[in-house]
Amino acid sequence: MEAGMQAAIEEARQGLAEGGVPIGSALVYGERIIGRGHNRRRQRGSVVLHGEMDALENAGRQPASVYRHSVLYTTLSPCPMCSGAILLYGIPRVVIGENRTFLGEEALLRERGVAVEVLDLDECVELMRRFIADSPEVWNEDIGE
Amino acid sequence: MEAGMQAAIEEARQGLAEGGVPIGSALVYGERIIGRGHNRRRQRGSVVLHGEMDALENAGRQPASVYRHSVLYTTLSPCPMCSGAILLYGIPRVVIGENRTFLGEEALLRERGVAVEVLDLDECVELMRRFIADSPEVWNEDIGE
Repeated sequence: MEAGMQAAIEEARQGLAEGGVPIGSALVYGERIIGRGHNRRRQRGSVVLHGEMDALENAGRQPASVYRHSVLYTTLSPCPMCSGAILLYGIPRVVIGENRTFLGEEALLRERGVAVEVLDLDECVELMRRFIADSPEVWNEDIGE
Repeated sequence: MEAGMQAAIEEARQGLAEGGVPIGSALVYGERIIGRGHNRRRQRGSVVLHGEMDALENAGRQPASVYRHSVLYTTLSPCPMCSGAILLYGIPRVVIGENRTFLGEEALLRERGVAVEVLDLDECVELMRRFIADSPEVWNEDIGE
């Protein structure tokens, strides 16, 4: 497995261990992970730090040239907010762990020229299954339902 | 002027006074401002806290029923990330100070059923004009260019 997805899954597992929504992400520039993170809704009461957003935030301020040569790895199909961040920063490629639990804005991303790859990993599905069984209300809140 | 836009402009002015990108926002539920904020790129090195995102974050965790009866006020047309957040949380109405400086994803928002109103306020244009003249590189970074 690519190092970016490995890091994203580690982040998701860490989120689960903290009692949080187990979605993780990593931003990879060239061969280097420049940001990694996971959903912080429960841990910090954050409504904007989804896994992808946390990875972007932890990467810090970057010039457009870095984003435009980066890949964003995420364990779950990106929601409208995270997809919008991908479009804002012109990230050209997104690798997704799974989209069975939740189908985000993959069609919009593709329509705008982003390369979207879905790995369909059972490991990512299982993390979400466990969390949603325990805390359906937190999951619904996280996706605005 | 509606209290929500007044608060958004106050936030933008505060951002400018801090040396930051002067974009402000307020989330209004019923008659009450439940979150207000401004862009934090320079102040906190944040790449996710645009004005709208900061207002959402400061409103804290809310049930879907609150977002679905709220209005988001913002001094500038919302970028893809902030528009995505509006779609994620199902905010039905967005009031925008101006879209001359930057035209965000207004078409996408309308297409998805969000009511979008543009007030075209000179005051908001002038705040951005001053900032961009002084710090064009920060502005370009903020919109991913």
